Amino acid sequence: LYGLDNLPYGSRVGADGRRFAAVRYGDQALDLSAWESSSDSGGALFADGSLQSLLAAGPDTWADVRAGVVSELSGPDASAHLSDLADSRPMLPFEVADYVDFYASEHHATNVGRVFRPDGEPLTPNWKHLPIGYHGRAGTIVVSDTDIRRPCGQSRSADGSIGFGPSARLDIEAEVAFVVGVGSELGTPLAVSALAEHVFGVCLLNDWSARDIQAWEYVPLGPFLGKSFATSVSAWITPLAALSQAWVAPPPRDPEPLPYLDDSALPAALDLSLEVWLNGTLISRPPFAGMYWTPAQMLAHMTVNGASLRTGDVFASGTVSGAERGQRGSLLELTWNGTEPLQLDSGPHGFLADGDVVEIRATAPGATGPIGLGEVRGRILPALG
Amino acid sequence: LYGLDNLPYGSRVGADGRRFAAVRYGDQALDLSAWESSSDSGGALFADGSLQSLLAAGPDTWADVRAGVVSELSGPDASAHLSDLADSRPMLPFEVADYVDFYASEHHATNVGRVFRPDGEPLTPNWKHLPIGYHGRAGTIVVSDTDIRRPCGQSRSADGSIGFGPSARLDIEAEVAFVVGVGSELGTPLAVSALAEHVFGVCLLNDWSARDIQAWEYVPLGPFLGKSFATSVSAWITPLAALSQAWVAPPPRDPEPLPYLDDSALPAALDLSLEVWLNGTLISRPPFAGMYWTPAQMLAHMTVNGASLRTGDVFASGTVSGAERGQRGSLLELTWNGTEPLQLDSGPHGFLADGDVVEIRATAPGATGPIGLGEVRGRILPALG
Repeated sequence: LYGLDNLPYGSRVGADGRRFAAVRYGDQALDLSAWESSSDSGGALFADGSLQSLLAAGPDTWADVRAGVVSELSGPDASAHLSDLADSRPMLPFEVADYVDFYASEHHATNVGRVFRPDGEPLTPNWKHLPIGYHGRAGTIVVSDTDIRRPCGQSRSADGSIGFGPSARLDIEAEVAFVVGVGSELGTPLAVSALAEHVFGVCLLNDWSARDIQAWEYVPLGPFLGKSFATSVSAWITPLAALSQAWVAPPPRDPEPLPYLDDSALPAALDLSLEVWLNGTLISRPPFAGMYWTPAQMLAHMTVNGASLRTGDVFASGTVSGAERGQRGSLLELTWNGTEPLQLDSGPHGFLADGDVVEIRATAPGATGPIGLGEVRGRILPALG
Repeated sequence: LYGLDNLPYGSRVGADGRRFAAVRYGDQALDLSAWESSSDSGGALFADGSLQSLLAAGPDTWADVRAGVVSELSGPDASAHLSDLADSRPMLPFEVADYVDFYASEHHATNVGRVFRPDGEPLTPNWKHLPIGYHGRAGTIVVSDTDIRRPCGQSRSADGSIGFGPSARLDIEAEVAFVVGVGSELGTPLAVSALAEHVFGVCLLNDWSARDIQAWEYVPLGPFLGKSFATSVSAWITPLAALSQAWVAPPPRDPEPLPYLDDSALPAALDLSLEVWLNGTLISRPPFAGMYWTPAQMLAHMTVNGASLRTGDVFASGTVSGAERGQRGSLLELTWNGTEPLQLDSGPHGFLADGDVVEIRATAPGATGPIGLGEVRGRILPALG
């Protein structure tokens, strides 16, 4: 899953406390910072141990570095800059600028509508006209394997009373996120065709959600504290260059999107196969290829009002859910708001319990077989007492 | 308005292209970067010309720098580091981390409810239980005097058809913003009493809003493109130390806020008197003292779920509107959604026209008279063709 046709990027800290930029190759990390300083390239892309400079450098540099890494790893001798992944731990590989979360799965949005508005139309009138999105909290995005503290907050009981305490309906959202490398000018919209010029790569994202806090706060300005306590991303960013085999046609859209959202000239959907694991049990297989809105449309929509991008911006798909029950990307859907618990070997399971470990994995078609997207994993800690 | 009891901070670029951190004193700028390097303090707070390091340094340093500046400006000789404001132009003085916008004026929220839901309760059920807020786009915050390009986007006509084009209902929101200096730990809520340990100062903010885009997109996840094209902030940040005379009791709250929002031990409201000027005509005088939710409550609420703060976070009040018609902080309210145009000398005026210049000013009680908050100003450019 992590061969020469994949080569995702990350940032690590070794046992000596030194931070370095890395490429994953099998179960090893190629130390890009050491590799760069030992070469005669004269570059300083990785001097700070992060991917920040690489992201900003743009597609030509992305291609050059990838070619150099392939060459380093496919030479007759093993690279001197490889170490076992177990010898280092991941860090967030770049500084998140703005974080936008979309709501691009028709199945997810429909399920949410049915749960919360059983007598109404499941989709809002705008849903098929534009990719609905909102800004999340960039400063609480954490790297995979960071523990997640159960949040406290206000919620309203069925009897209408307002309470305060630890969230009792803590949930996951299995998502795919896009990392912006090259920014854009304020006032200048980007076309759907601009994705590869601006987006460096893809990672997995778990948008932890406190459904009780969210339900009470979100009208009229949207989710806030129900989401902002933490959002986890995978430690590895798969560059778009590794996903060249993964583009497929999106599902049919009706009504026809407005011209600025017309992605019919592209194979605009990404064929990623997600898996959601709860305490070691596979509980869902959400398919990303069937998302109603594509990443190119998200990019075009997000900038159509002239909003600029910055290096480090992250935009995510929203919960990935397929048409079938076993393809839903949140416990809200998988347990139908807790009324239909999952049946695990350990017993029935509703929303997240303290100590639960959630892991989201994914694969994509690669040149010679499936490639892996770095997993995103987190464990729930009890609320502060 | 800009005497020794005020001394707000900013960042400037001179005619030679050099960037420097500055304090405003009358109509002059004290060059903090030059002052620091000419002193024997050995400090490097202002070496990069921004306020970033000052913000992060915390209350003791804030007090030390302020005392040093007062000493420099009140000596027998004029400081060698003063220049006319006209000789330099403002820059955004720090890098915005996360931007949260609240909705803390009862009069504003009530007016908006009456305009859009004339037959319903104007306030949502949650409004008096928690300060409603959402995340805005940090990367499109611009400094005062940056021109604002009219955004394009989707909207729905009265007949239900979906159109695309330049916003026809471009608006302002006169707000007060709080700039975070000292960050906090993920997982650790902050109390209402923590404001002065974390917040460096206050500025004015204009949350430009495209009402037609916003109305179509905002259900269910809140405002997005209707706001994200630009948000203007004043060039000067007034430190909390200059506002010691400005704290007053907030209005009575009913129901009693939950304990984590109890600010009754503080004089938690800030007595700022705002003015909104449109093309040189004073059109509103919003009073900040009467805001239902106070900045201390915003801080406590924003972190009660464990969300962390970072240096450069900005949180804003939402539109400041008072009880009277002449105290409303948006054209949506001042013109009652365009149905009651303002009567200016130039004729009737609804939402913003191309070429309009909006300026928001404010004063606060100081030790020896009113002190000024730096104005926030912007001019509307026509949409891209």
